Amino acid sequence: MSLFEKHRDLIARAVKAVHERTFYAAFPEIPKAYAEDAAQKGNETYAGYLNRNFTALLQKDSGHWEGEEVSPYTQEPLGIKYPVYHVEELVAASNDAFRSWRKTAIEDRAGVLVESLEKMQEHFFEIALATQHTTGQSWIMSFQASGPHAADRALETIAVGYDELTKFPHEVVWEKPMGKFSVKLDKEFIPVPKGIGLVIGCSTFPVWNSLPGLYANLITGNTAIVKPHPKSVLPMAICVALIQHTLKENGFDPNIVQLAVDSSILPISIKLGSLHDIKLIDYTGNTQFGNWVESLSHKTTFTEKAGVNSVILDSVKDIDVTLQNLAFSVSLYSGQMCTAPQNFFIPEKIKSGDQVLTHEAVVVKLKEALTALVTNPKMGAGVLGAIQNEKTLHRVHDASAMGSRAVLPSSPVKNEEFPQSRTVSPVLLETSATDVKTFETELFGPIAIAIKTKDTDESIRLAKEVAAQHGAITCAAYSTDESVMKKIADEMNEVFVPVTFNLTGPIWVNQHAAFSDLHVTGGNPAGNASLTDAAFIVKRFVWVGNRKMN
Amino acid sequence: MSLFEKHRDLIARAVKAVHERTFYAAFPEIPKAYAEDAAQKGNETYAGYLNRNFTALLQKDSGHWEGEEVSPYTQEPLGIKYPVYHVEELVAASNDAFRSWRKTAIEDRAGVLVESLEKMQEHFFEIALATQHTTGQSWIMSFQASGPHAADRALETIAVGYDELTKFPHEVVWEKPMGKFSVKLDKEFIPVPKGIGLVIGCSTFPVWNSLPGLYANLITGNTAIVKPHPKSVLPMAICVALIQHTLKENGFDPNIVQLAVDSSILPISIKLGSLHDIKLIDYTGNTQFGNWVESLSHKTTFTEKAGVNSVILDSVKDIDVTLQNLAFSVSLYSGQMCTAPQNFFIPEKIKSGDQVLTHEAVVVKLKEALTALVTNPKMGAGVLGAIQNEKTLHRVHDASAMGSRAVLPSSPVKNEEFPQSRTVSPVLLETSATDVKTFETELFGPIAIAIKTKDTDESIRLAKEVAAQHGAITCAAYSTDESVMKKIADEMNEVFVPVTFNLTGPIWVNQHAAFSDLHVTGGNPAGNASLTDAAFIVKRFVWVGNRKMN
Repeated sequence: MSLFEKHRDLIARAVKAVHERTFYAAFPEIPKAYAEDAAQKGNETYAGYLNRNFTALLQKDSGHWEGEEVSPYTQEPLGIKYPVYHVEELVAASNDAFRSWRKTAIEDRAGVLVESLEKMQEHFFEIALATQHTTGQSWIMSFQASGPHAADRALETIAVGYDELTKFPHEVVWEKPMGKFSVKLDKEFIPVPKGIGLVIGCSTFPVWNSLPGLYANLITGNTAIVKPHPKSVLPMAICVALIQHTLKENGFDPNIVQLAVDSSILPISIKLGSLHDIKLIDYTGNTQFGNWVESLSHKTTFTEKAGVNSVILDSVKDIDVTLQNLAFSVSLYSGQMCTAPQNFFIPEKIKSGDQVLTHEAVVVKLKEALTALVTNPKMGAGVLGAIQNEKTLHRVHDASAMGSRAVLPSSPVKNEEFPQSRTVSPVLLETSATDVKTFETELFGPIAIAIKTKDTDESIRLAKEVAAQHGAITCAAYSTDESVMKKIADEMNEVFVPVTFNLTGPIWVNQHAAFSDLHVTGGNPAGNASLTDAAFIVKRFVWVGNRKMN
Repeated sequence: MSLFEKHRDLIARAVKAVHERTFYAAFPEIPKAYAEDAAQKGNETYAGYLNRNFTALLQKDSGHWEGEEVSPYTQEPLGIKYPVYHVEELVAASNDAFRSWRKTAIEDRAGVLVESLEKMQEHFFEIALATQHTTGQSWIMSFQASGPHAADRALETIAVGYDELTKFPHEVVWEKPMGKFSVKLDKEFIPVPKGIGLVIGCSTFPVWNSLPGLYANLITGNTAIVKPHPKSVLPMAICVALIQHTLKENGFDPNIVQLAVDSSILPISIKLGSLHDIKLIDYTGNTQFGNWVESLSHKTTFTEKAGVNSVILDSVKDIDVTLQNLAFSVSLYSGQMCTAPQNFFIPEKIKSGDQVLTHEAVVVKLKEALTALVTNPKMGAGVLGAIQNEKTLHRVHDASAMGSRAVLPSSPVKNEEFPQSRTVSPVLLETSATDVKTFETELFGPIAIAIKTKDTDESIRLAKEVAAQHGAITCAAYSTDESVMKKIADEMNEVFVPVTFNLTGPIWVNQHAAFSDLHVTGGNPAGNASLTDAAFIVKRFVWVGNRKMN
């Protein structure tokens, strides 16, 4: 049985799920149970990686090894070194692999790629630890984000890819009636891949943000070079090694995907990304570099950059459950999610049930909700995780030092399991609607800003302007009035920002579910691509139609 | 009955045809008959346009009228003047129209757009004359290219648009099982249009090359401004007026599409295309301007530029019928089709049936085939049509003056109906495989080049290199050997050039049929877009998903 046959049902259900956008209806058996000893095995495997060379890749020997990862939880180096290559070597090996991969049937590509995800599933536990100790995510978020959620998004790109690449018949007879006779042509339609795809990862979501572009390249017949952030290499090193082994075991060239490791001192992204043979670039990270990626002519690029996400508070059923939900969104992984809310537009007066609250009263309640969450010994440290890097910590300290505007300054939060954890409570700043300078840029990290507006119309106007000019990935809005909700949606959608209304309880605006939510729209400065719409796939290959006299 | 209900069957069949790529199977009743008096009415309507202001548009009054069209057949001015507007006025009116059009349901957009094509069908005869006397196409080609073939391509974009915009459910309930309870969200998926689309036309195929981008913009909810070539305004002026009237009659703002006329002395494309509110640009024309269009950041562009199309002769069943077919392709509309072959790679020896011919013998036969065609009193002038502009004529004269390399110089060809017609016979140049300079650029017009190669491998290598570096839209190849055909297809497809094999009889490589052949692949320098793949549609709008607590 071919791998395609083995996974045919899964692929068909995934394609269905893409179209239906409900996911759980197509996959009612989710979540599944893992093996009883999976966690322990994962711990052992992860411990085995520490303080040595990472040798699991199937790339050729390298005389040069580098590694600089430090755990945000222990603040100690992981001590892992990775092989380093000249960019030309990586491209040459990728070109070699491309020659056969481009000719591989879509069914065979889909089969072996799904197989690689199945293999990855057996290694979710060590990938989780690798993620936790390079990003600062909590263990549970690391497991979800780099495990099932990342694999879901990878499967989603395989499904959209399979759907798009099989859209036209491979062969067809075209017959044109010409009166007494007809002209017949045999036509074939071939989706031709573009070449080598470079996937540049980030330090906060190394797997979740890299797998979609990687699998999108592979399903469309392109080869891939994965360039992880030097501070978070291990999660994708494990994934790339697993894909390489799956490829090799099934008779494919493992260099169809390669890992390209660099260092903070000698970064290679510009050199690698500028090479002629790199035809596609997927990038997640800061705006400045993302703008450079987008400016590259003759390359197809997919970016996710910074965004400034807003909360528009108009009216609520219950202000306390509302603010509990939002305090959690701000605190989750210390605001280091690209979907975390930052700007809270709170008008002079807000209706909560039968009551009318002042702006000031709501700010006090938000402050209380944040404090209650982070000081909750069962939740605080776990929800916050750790701060990935020093720069973010400095940003928090600078915000805390803003005097009267810092209505809730940040303070260290103790993590019982990891006493050295780089964990702090969120800062809440307060400012006016005219202080655009303060709230128009992304303050990455656990920083929220309460902005006093005259009314909801002003809140919408400001949220829209900031999104149009600086980008936004999400908007959380609360209103009990259908017409206001419609207005908020219309206005924010115009600048290509999705709006999530009235969330309370155990679901947060930060969450974008595969097979249902489109992640980043691609329409505003937060990025030029969307997970996973058709454009994310069809820009990676070109339809070519040959004809032959029948 | 809504217009969508009226045209529902046609739209469904068009979507089916897009997927099946056979066209005639989905539309067996094609071709249809036109009204008996349609031709006569068309003649009268066309005559009525001459020597006056064109007042059929539903745009506001303009104090300024311009027109500079000259018939390549009579070499006399048409005398028609068109209203001229400031670019800011056009954009302001388009923005106004966008407010309602963007909110119009996809079904209503599809309905009124198909209705506009139905209306256009009643005016194919005057559109044909307008095309003939501005482009120099023969009447029959003008009728086909600007009539049914252009409408087919427009319908194709409506179909792909309808298919893509209805891909996700408009509303869905998403339910996530959470153990004892579940979280439910109401989700809606909205395809949000990007803004105003500028469609810049060319002087040789003013309708065929403009309708696809125009209808692609309109079906996706964008408004459009059509900027025709100042030497060929009338065909699209008629089309835009017809669409405006259809829109108005059905309660829509006619400014959803506007005509923007400029002059050779005061062109407006750069000024208009640079405006912030122009979000999309469709362009057909020269490479230099096309490269400028593609370089515009923050705009989505769709280009068709110059290409150098090759013929690879390896082996044939019958050299004479082969060369008859190719001589026709070169001569058809005097090589002014973007799909016309230019470079004939002919090796030292060619098998034709049981015979082996030398390169030189084949060149003599090609020369004879060209001469026989253009001197055929029943075909010559009709096939050639007329040369659209003086520049092309100069290029032909310069090529003719190349001495011994011009193995067949050009000479005037008499058109009985139009004695002043700017019509000349094709030039055939002969050169060697090393003379890359001569054959690597597009020599637009009736110019063919016979290039002597060592063997078919060298022919493939040269055709591939020229296509990769300078672009190509088609490749005609002839071989009786399956393995050679496979090699030619593989190599040319790698540089995103479709190959057409072994055409003889009444079908030519120049023809790209809607709903079946993809026109331009978008993968090489001949252009960055393809009619009509998914990318041609999905890059014009952005999916935005809103969520609401259920």
